[in-house]
Amino acid sequence: MKPITLYPIILVWLLSFSCSPQGPKTEQTTERPPNIVIIFMDDMGYGDLSCFGHPTIQTPNIDKIAHEGQKWTNFYTACSVCSPSRGALLTGRYPIRIGLGPVKHRVFFPESTGGLPSGEITIAEMLKEKGYQTGIIGKWHLGHLPEHLPTRQGFDYYYGIPYSNDMDAVNWSIKTFFSEPDFNMWNVPLMENETIIERPANQHTITKRYTEKAVEFITKNRDKPFFLYFPHSMVHTPLFASKDFIHTSPRGLFGDIMSEVDWSVGQVISTLEKLALDRNTLVIFTSDNGPWLIMLEHGGSAGLLREGKGTTWEGGMRVPGIFYMPGTVKPGTITDLGSTLDLLPTIAGLTGTTAPTDRILDGYDLSPVLKEKASSSRDHFFYYRNQDIYAVRNREYKAHFITETCYQADNQKTVHEEPLLFQINQDPSEKYNHADAHPEVLKSLQALVESHQKGVVAAPPEMEKR
Amino acid sequence: MKPITLYPIILVWLLSFSCSPQGPKTEQTTERPPNIVIIFMDDMGYGDLSCFGHPTIQTPNIDKIAHEGQKWTNFYTACSVCSPSRGALLTGRYPIRIGLGPVKHRVFFPESTGGLPSGEITIAEMLKEKGYQTGIIGKWHLGHLPEHLPTRQGFDYYYGIPYSNDMDAVNWSIKTFFSEPDFNMWNVPLMENETIIERPANQHTITKRYTEKAVEFITKNRDKPFFLYFPHSMVHTPLFASKDFIHTSPRGLFGDIMSEVDWSVGQVISTLEKLALDRNTLVIFTSDNGPWLIMLEHGGSAGLLREGKGTTWEGGMRVPGIFYMPGTVKPGTITDLGSTLDLLPTIAGLTGTTAPTDRILDGYDLSPVLKEKASSSRDHFFYYRNQDIYAVRNREYKAHFITETCYQADNQKTVHEEPLLFQINQDPSEKYNHADAHPEVLKSLQALVESHQKGVVAAPPEMEKR
Repeated sequence: MKPITLYPIILVWLLSFSCSPQGPKTEQTTERPPNIVIIFMDDMGYGDLSCFGHPTIQTPNIDKIAHEGQKWTNFYTACSVCSPSRGALLTGRYPIRIGLGPVKHRVFFPESTGGLPSGEITIAEMLKEKGYQTGIIGKWHLGHLPEHLPTRQGFDYYYGIPYSNDMDAVNWSIKTFFSEPDFNMWNVPLMENETIIERPANQHTITKRYTEKAVEFITKNRDKPFFLYFPHSMVHTPLFASKDFIHTSPRGLFGDIMSEVDWSVGQVISTLEKLALDRNTLVIFTSDNGPWLIMLEHGGSAGLLREGKGTTWEGGMRVPGIFYMPGTVKPGTITDLGSTLDLLPTIAGLTGTTAPTDRILDGYDLSPVLKEKASSSRDHFFYYRNQDIYAVRNREYKAHFITETCYQADNQKTVHEEPLLFQINQDPSEKYNHADAHPEVLKSLQALVESHQKGVVAAPPEMEKR
Repeated sequence: MKPITLYPIILVWLLSFSCSPQGPKTEQTTERPPNIVIIFMDDMGYGDLSCFGHPTIQTPNIDKIAHEGQKWTNFYTACSVCSPSRGALLTGRYPIRIGLGPVKHRVFFPESTGGLPSGEITIAEMLKEKGYQTGIIGKWHLGHLPEHLPTRQGFDYYYGIPYSNDMDAVNWSIKTFFSEPDFNMWNVPLMENETIIERPANQHTITKRYTEKAVEFITKNRDKPFFLYFPHSMVHTPLFASKDFIHTSPRGLFGDIMSEVDWSVGQVISTLEKLALDRNTLVIFTSDNGPWLIMLEHGGSAGLLREGKGTTWEGGMRVPGIFYMPGTVKPGTITDLGSTLDLLPTIAGLTGTTAPTDRILDGYDLSPVLKEKASSSRDHFFYYRNQDIYAVRNREYKAHFITETCYQADNQKTVHEEPLLFQINQDPSEKYNHADAHPEVLKSLQALVESHQKGVVAAPPEMEKR
């Protein structure tokens, strides 16, 4: 062999090396279905990421996956408070169908005995059928008695605080939320699988420890398809950051924690890259509901959207939606509608799994949008509060039948005999009521609600169980 | 020569070719000082760019320069209305010093006879000393009688509408702003240098024509250092888009125009790239003041900031600030303070020009931040309205002595005997008054104002001249 003939081969090899931003690509198998990672924030508002416009919160790692993946700007969570939002995400069904349409109690409390009904099929259960390893690191909040724990709902592994981090208050006072953070004031348990391993959980290190466990889970399951559901306990008040992040953000403690969460996202992504799994893993980043505005500077921001957590105004239910999977998710900003309700069907579509067919699903398969920027199959969305539909959106129009503000006590609502109508793409802040100008639109939205309600059977409310 | 010795050379050449995202770099001279392009929006709010969080306005070209350049999130215009804001940008001095601190009339009107005093030194005049070719394409609004035109203030070339596009109304009615756009309703002139070349200006094509002229100016001056000041007439109401952009944005007509402006920015950047001038041209993108909220959906959005145009709340005066110069401007988000007042000293610093030394300048040279992400020299900012200081910011604190809302008639102001104090980095929406908790901060802010005022001489108000 003459030496000269080697050069073109070396050349091609070197070129491929130098052109790839991450160096030479490790062969990633396409035979195995993609891994799924859902990172779910608690009480993070539409305006709390740098890439969604916050001036002083810095989230470079999240911004990067938004920039290199898809940034959804009309993305909705199925409920404006915690437990129903989480149940809907995991099942693809409106909370009312799964026993999470509350009557009096809007979320599970430590004294609750209910939970997500075992007959419901979670993403974890769906993917287990396909041979996935499944884990949840973080906040569950769908029932904490043994029969309701994640380990009974399709998850092989659980590590986290099973409900909100402001529960089990030792000596409840609103002041404790704003004083020097002391985790002893909230006697919340930290669990591993079905065992309490620490109580009160040291919340200062909770984001750090969740992240270490998430990295461990990914690393351990590198050779099998896996589903990691990663619902953070933060940035729900009381706010706790670890010492590496405290006093690092101009946004104060809330910003420190957002920096820590951003670091955490960076850890997940770099672990996937190190294991050469990044191109075969769909990473989803979103939030359970809007910002808890009554927490003042300790609460987040809905950006230009109206109101926050607990309401059916946009600020309560529209959240950042980010999808990232290099080589599969086509980068761009998506202004079409999407919802956490769509995650189950989308994951089914992307992994070639069969979504449950024996029940009504409220989600749509968004995988064609992810892959080809096709139009979203979702054109409408119902804004439930408790058992009622307060508002409905169909494409660019949103009608409000009942409204409330997050500053009012519960159940102080305004019923609009003449519903409000907003052109929500032109007026995302819901300032200008155009009901008079478009009675036909209002009529069609009302018809949409009625037609939907005919197909809804309210399951017995689990959150009332004591 | 043996053929084999050629391969390493070819290899190196091929590698350099394949690694550069834009293909092989054309040699760009570093001897000549950098060109300057300032793209200045009219009434575009803090929340009206995709990269600053708007959900339905899409600005991919602007997002790209923000992402690859510096995105300033605490960047201020020197006045919340048009003429004073423009005068301050061009001179680096607060409006009150340059005859633009109004008493009654806040901007120049067609019947005005005043203008930016000829004794003031504009960026154009400063750069002419250094041999720059200077041009302004767009809205001047600093006096339209011959002695006040741009051609008398250091600009070699002018093309544009000399004042606001809603002036010279033929039959004034608020309805005309919201009806089917008809440019004949506003008899505004289009000028080239000192000659009126069209009246009424066809505003449908104004953004398109400005852009063509800007590209022409850059191309014509490719071999000399140039300064292009490019203040758009849009998105000031009445809104006009050209037919290529009408009905293209889910945000409606306002969004159509933002898309057209974004296309325009793309045209400027691609022209610089084609001429291999992109690495030797500082491009600045910002806005003259916050959104004109009384224009309803035809007005913009301040995002999470409070209020809009005409006020000293953040929404009136904080605007997007973007600096782009590949290879020189270090990419990143800058949360330090900056202002349009700083452009003159920054441009002086970057081009090696001497800024005026015979007068007080209110700007700071930000070029170390651009080049090395050094800390900004600006730590405070005065929020003037007319001749008064309504508010002051020093680092994270902002005190409000007088407030107003943009929905009130002019001069309906609230004087706060006990000033308001906001921790503006933690509370950008100015919701939580902490005056009681920090009396010492308030005192130091008041002292800062008093010390500044001792050095201010109000020049005779030009906008009162008739």
